[in-house]
Amino acid sequence: MNHLLVLQSDFGLSDGAVAAMEGVALSVDPSLRLYSLTHEIPPFDTYEASYRLLQAVPYWPEGSVFVSVVDPGVGSARRSCVAKTVTGQYIVTPDNGSLSHIARVIGIEEVREISKDERRAGSQFTQTFHGRDVYAYIGARLAAGIRKFEEIGEPYDVKDVVMLEMPEAKFEDGVLTGTIETLDVRFGSLWTNISSELFAQLGAERKDLIDISIYNGDRKVHRSFVTYALTFADVEIGESLIYVNSMNHMAVAINQGSFADAYHIGTRNGWKITMKKASGR
Amino acid sequence: MNHLLVLQSDFGLSDGAVAAMEGVALSVDPSLRLYSLTHEIPPFDTYEASYRLLQAVPYWPEGSVFVSVVDPGVGSARRSCVAKTVTGQYIVTPDNGSLSHIARVIGIEEVREISKDERRAGSQFTQTFHGRDVYAYIGARLAAGIRKFEEIGEPYDVKDVVMLEMPEAKFEDGVLTGTIETLDVRFGSLWTNISSELFAQLGAERKDLIDISIYNGDRKVHRSFVTYALTFADVEIGESLIYVNSMNHMAVAINQGSFADAYHIGTRNGWKITMKKASGR
Amino acid sequence: MNHLLVLQSDFGLSDGAVAAMEGVALSVDPSLRLYSLTHEIPPFDTYEASYRLLQAVPYWPEGSVFVSVVDPGVGSARRSCVAKTVTGQYIVTPDNGSLSHIARVIGIEEVREISKDERRAGSQFTQTFHGRDVYAYIGARLAAGIRKFEEIGEPYDVKDVVMLEMPEAKFEDGVLTGTIETLDVRFGSLWTNISSELFAQLGAERKDLIDISIYNGDRKVHRSFVTYALTFADVEIGESLIYVNSMNHMAVAINQGSFADAYHIGTRNGWKITMKKASGR
Repeated sequence: MNHLLVLQSDFGLSDGAVAAMEGVALSVDPSLRLYSLTHEIPPFDTYEASYRLLQAVPYWPEGSVFVSVVDPGVGSARRSCVAKTVTGQYIVTPDNGSLSHIARVIGIEEVREISKDERRAGSQFTQTFHGRDVYAYIGARLAAGIRKFEEIGEPYDVKDVVMLEMPEAKFEDGVLTGTIETLDVRFGSLWTNISSELFAQLGAERKDLIDISIYNGDRKVHRSFVTYALTFADVEIGESLIYVNSMNHMAVAINQGSFADAYHIGTRNGWKITMKKASGR
Repeated sequence: MNHLLVLQSDFGLSDGAVAAMEGVALSVDPSLRLYSLTHEIPPFDTYEASYRLLQAVPYWPEGSVFVSVVDPGVGSARRSCVAKTVTGQYIVTPDNGSLSHIARVIGIEEVREISKDERRAGSQFTQTFHGRDVYAYIGARLAAGIRKFEEIGEPYDVKDVVMLEMPEAKFEDGVLTGTIETLDVRFGSLWTNISSELFAQLGAERKDLIDISIYNGDRKVHRSFVTYALTFADVEIGESLIYVNSMNHMAVAINQGSFADAYHIGTRNGWKITMKKASGR
Repeated sequence: MNHLLVLQSDFGLSDGAVAAMEGVALSVDPSLRLYSLTHEIPPFDTYEASYRLLQAVPYWPEGSVFVSVVDPGVGSARRSCVAKTVTGQYIVTPDNGSLSHIARVIGIEEVREISKDERRAGSQFTQTFHGRDVYAYIGARLAAGIRKFEEIGEPYDVKDVVMLEMPEAKFEDGVLTGTIETLDVRFGSLWTNISSELFAQLGAERKDLIDISIYNGDRKVHRSFVTYALTFADVEIGESLIYVNSMNHMAVAINQGSFADAYHIGTRNGWKITMKKASGR
């Protein structure tokens, strides 16, 4: 193990919850090197937790341990687990959908259930902060090499990992249809589930116009013609573009503006986007 | 010393103030391992600084050094000090109430006044950023072992440490009365000063209904019957509960909702909560 | 090199972008010690990026490597560079004005252009996240000592570094005129470009009243008489003051209040402040 431990949660950074988790981890082994993925996951949003893991985990060295605590079911019968990814990182998390993207896109090699008895000594008085009392503690023992992955509870079938519903993007009759998975929060770009490989089927070339429509449920809320660009520098400031984002999926943005704010676009439930080549060209 | 240095402040993370403190500390010894408790303490709020220290400090290894800079009196005659807790951590802070919770709940073993001459070389031009020029510098020297605790200025009586007013919770005629000390900020739960031991005097059992009233000054602003739960999973989503929080005190929440937002509940000055067993049961 | 790597960006902390950069850096060398300056630079605001570098860089040990990614021109022809400061730190950044304050106030000893071929293997599919694929990668190699500064592309003339327009403060006919460069964000103090040395020409002494006027374009939006104070403790709570800030420039504040909020004062473009000794004294 490389002694790297990375925390993610929906706790925010304005109180002492994250620092309490860090203290627990460093009490296990003060030489651990702790980092944070993000603690700004919207409360209880396991989909976002899953997406943010995909955005970061694959870039970390083999043997890095992630602890993700977005846990609407804290204290319930939901399983706690440690997953080992195909790329060699470990993720300690409630098995509640938080592994969905990693499982689908990267792959989980093996998953083990954490025994309910395995927790920090002296923490039995409360059942409401498993981030501190269970997950940070176990993640730290794993990252420190005190506990081997193979010693953590019983393995179970990777196919039994809880998966959130994730509609597939599709290409039919010259039209791509996908969902808006998330926003590039600070910049207001729409990040879709349409991969660059699927987009390639449109046969569009750099600077071609793409005809996009966005739906909230059955209602069309936006239509425009946007430039397919390799970089933001391919368009003017204030001009819309469609491009391959850092997750290798298609995204829609306004150069130095916010597409989501400009057109009041949301994500996930009920939001849909279609793309086709502009016919007039 | 374990070379762990943890910073807390009301500076926020949107400018370079915290990074300047970190640079000063790492210039003292680049092998220090720096962490942050939180930098989102509301400006000048020493009560919150005190509470957040209690939430995190006890979970850190012996020998960890905390630097807390919430300092409405920067440049005034208020003392700067280093406190050693009964559990073996050190806290470098203005002595302005920031040590109140630690002193009361954990205990301070010894406290020493920092001499006014002890500060970073070349920092005399300004008297407005003691976080960088005094506290981070001294905390770093302590954490690095360059300066021993016993060498830091003169000790003074622990009873002279500035204590903020903290009303005691009480149990009278079958009714618990306490204050709302803070919120579990992201989740909107009310964290009271009623300990689980005091609550035990109600004789309530899991799933009993508790009759709670909340007052802002003399005005009752909320009353409801909430379930005493061991975990959030004991109640439905959207149902209110009362539970033992991660500080071993009683808290009131809505499962996956915000109690504070739902009923416009505030904290501290003038806010009061009472709890008794529901009579109808 | 001291293995310290400090990241700055306009990415915010609510998604996985910063953690992806950190993962890339630690994949180069897991023993690097990563810190953050701030990730809350307003999107595309190179002036703010430049100012925050000045606020932090000089306090870090020699050999520290900064990576600053505020990059409105990502994918365009703008140069990427590594600058070595006169004080011995390195800054990896797009050469887009982000070095303006450091160049002017601290000084750049040497600057080298990063070759466009130098980037993380396997990152060619996207041109929109150079923070992860170029800057963090190169900064990590530099901080780890894998790549020497002298081996990073070709040097170019320091005079060719892109400089943002920064009006000079001046003293004429007993009146100081300057700009409001930024706010002490959490506290609402106005940080001007008037240095303490220039202010000294007023001949004001501690507790003298200073007559200040603030203009938005040609319109005067505020005038008041504020106390020249050495520390906040020189004035009452709620009283305005002018003082030498932690950057050795003059700042205007309300003790425990927000001057910027109270009088709706903004920064930079078109905002101007004048100061003179109050004539009535």
